[in-house]
Amino acid sequence: MSLGEFSLIEKFFAQRGEGATVEVGIGDDAAALRVPVGHVAQLSTDTAIEGVHFPRDLPPADIAYRSVMAAASDLAAMGASPIGMLLAITLPGADETWLSRFAEGVSAASKATGLPLVGGDTTRGGLSVTVTVMGSTLASCCLRRSGARPGDRVCVSGTLGDAAAGLAIIEGHLTASDQTAAEFLTRRFTAPTARLALGESLLGVATSAIDLSDGLLADAEHIANASAVAIEIDSGKIPLSPAMRTLPDLDQSLQWALAGGDDYELLVTLPNGETVPDSLTEIGRVTSGRGVSCDQTLENRGYDHFAGRSG
Amino acid sequence: MSLGEFSLIEKFFAQRGEGATVEVGIGDDAAALRVPVGHVAQLSTDTAIEGVHFPRDLPPADIAYRSVMAAASDLAAMGASPIGMLLAITLPGADETWLSRFAEGVSAASKATGLPLVGGDTTRGGLSVTVTVMGSTLASCCLRRSGARPGDRVCVSGTLGDAAAGLAIIEGHLTASDQTAAEFLTRRFTAPTARLALGESLLGVATSAIDLSDGLLADAEHIANASAVAIEIDSGKIPLSPAMRTLPDLDQSLQWALAGGDDYELLVTLPNGETVPDSLTEIGRVTSGRGVSCDQTLENRGYDHFAGRSG
Repeated sequence: MSLGEFSLIEKFFAQRGEGATVEVGIGDDAAALRVPVGHVAQLSTDTAIEGVHFPRDLPPADIAYRSVMAAASDLAAMGASPIGMLLAITLPGADETWLSRFAEGVSAASKATGLPLVGGDTTRGGLSVTVTVMGSTLASCCLRRSGARPGDRVCVSGTLGDAAAGLAIIEGHLTASDQTAAEFLTRRFTAPTARLALGESLLGVATSAIDLSDGLLADAEHIANASAVAIEIDSGKIPLSPAMRTLPDLDQSLQWALAGGDDYELLVTLPNGETVPDSLTEIGRVTSGRGVSCDQTLENRGYDHFAGRSG
Repeated sequence: MSLGEFSLIEKFFAQRGEGATVEVGIGDDAAALRVPVGHVAQLSTDTAIEGVHFPRDLPPADIAYRSVMAAASDLAAMGASPIGMLLAITLPGADETWLSRFAEGVSAASKATGLPLVGGDTTRGGLSVTVTVMGSTLASCCLRRSGARPGDRVCVSGTLGDAAAGLAIIEGHLTASDQTAAEFLTRRFTAPTARLALGESLLGVATSAIDLSDGLLADAEHIANASAVAIEIDSGKIPLSPAMRTLPDLDQSLQWALAGGDDYELLVTLPNGETVPDSLTEIGRVTSGRGVSCDQTLENRGYDHFAGRSG
């Protein structure tokens, strides 16, 4: 990428990055960020690749918005407060209109998450977006995957499966007869919400947390493995959105809710005595043992493949 | 990428990430890192793409090593002490031998820089490596690009142009008759050294700093622009390695030293009264005005193109 193109990027992004946490923003060798006294920094990075993580020809503002939210969601799952983010974009070329819209998506997600853009890198190649986020919690206080204990309640935020249904609509595999429902579902794929405030509110309350990027069963397994416990999920309790309930194939909807991924809701475990906050729905329990079980046997629809997942 | 492949990555990388700064390492939603009391965190990210930033079929350990060093070099240019790094790799597939060698390169660079690997992401696509590094300095104390003042000395670490000559050898555009020289030059491309200790030693001494990734003239222009000063470079003072001096075309060598890039040495400005440390060579001065001038006119060899660079 020529430096002329690099200047173009600076033009679109250099005005961002103001915030109480930013000592040095875009334009030096590194950003300098203040971490509150007594806090530890949380750091996570996520790459999204065209044709793999999002469909070709997705609008650039949507690519940007969901890339930032996917990364920010990892901070939510730690209970971390936002500090700042870096953006590494690889682009086939410098299209000023495209970049302008992409920058709008970054800006909107930056405002929504409270993560100022403080730096990044621009390179030429197949379209991909790597967002690195930094947040903080009081020392030793963050939400881990490893704290679930037998007897805990398993809870989830929001509604599940929407993003997978939305992606099916975008890719033309699903036609929703209800236009409002179709718009809601596609927005849940293109504009997910990182549950940052919820994550922070669960510090010292939840025994474990993870964000739902791979799908409920796969991510529950990550908690079960990290905590060395078993998790039982009651499929009848899984929250489905009204939009999802307008779809004709409930089995398919349930499969998306269990294994679809990309919802960026939080899956948390709460001690048995703890009141379940309004923003969470109880969907199961932690028991002694290993692995994830669910009354819905998805063997015929790919669950065996997921059962082998680890990571 | 299937989760089987993700497990493969975990196998190669999950043992890294121990260090005094690491509270939560690889395997949770985010890493948790301790920032020393009174310090601010420095954060930078760098993407390297096969066929753009490094040649196709470069050995995987070299790809890993130089990717980490390139990112770490940004911390050196801020005078930051290392805390940790994240690695986002995009791979066409999961080749266990390739990954094993790549992991060796990461491990070697991690040891050499003092940056434990604390997390990352693995995706499928054309080969690229994005390394995010975090370091820290005492609050408000880091080396900026913007502090150069008229009267300052301009100094550089190491020797320049080696990496560009090394790349020319790797790509078959240059044949070095001296085998030892050829090996030295190629290693300067494949295994650069981030000048972390030097950067730290210049805190409170240097008035500005940048690392040489784009080439001396281009990076000097970054300092000149950020500091609103002019920089004059005396080409006769530019340090060339003994290996470089074995090459027959001195004009070409000088062009690489001025515009080649990838050296990851530090370019710094020092107050006039300051003794130049042994690890630095004085190559010019800061004056009032704007831009970069050099007694060598490179107009015929592409310098006009560089003169238009900004970023």
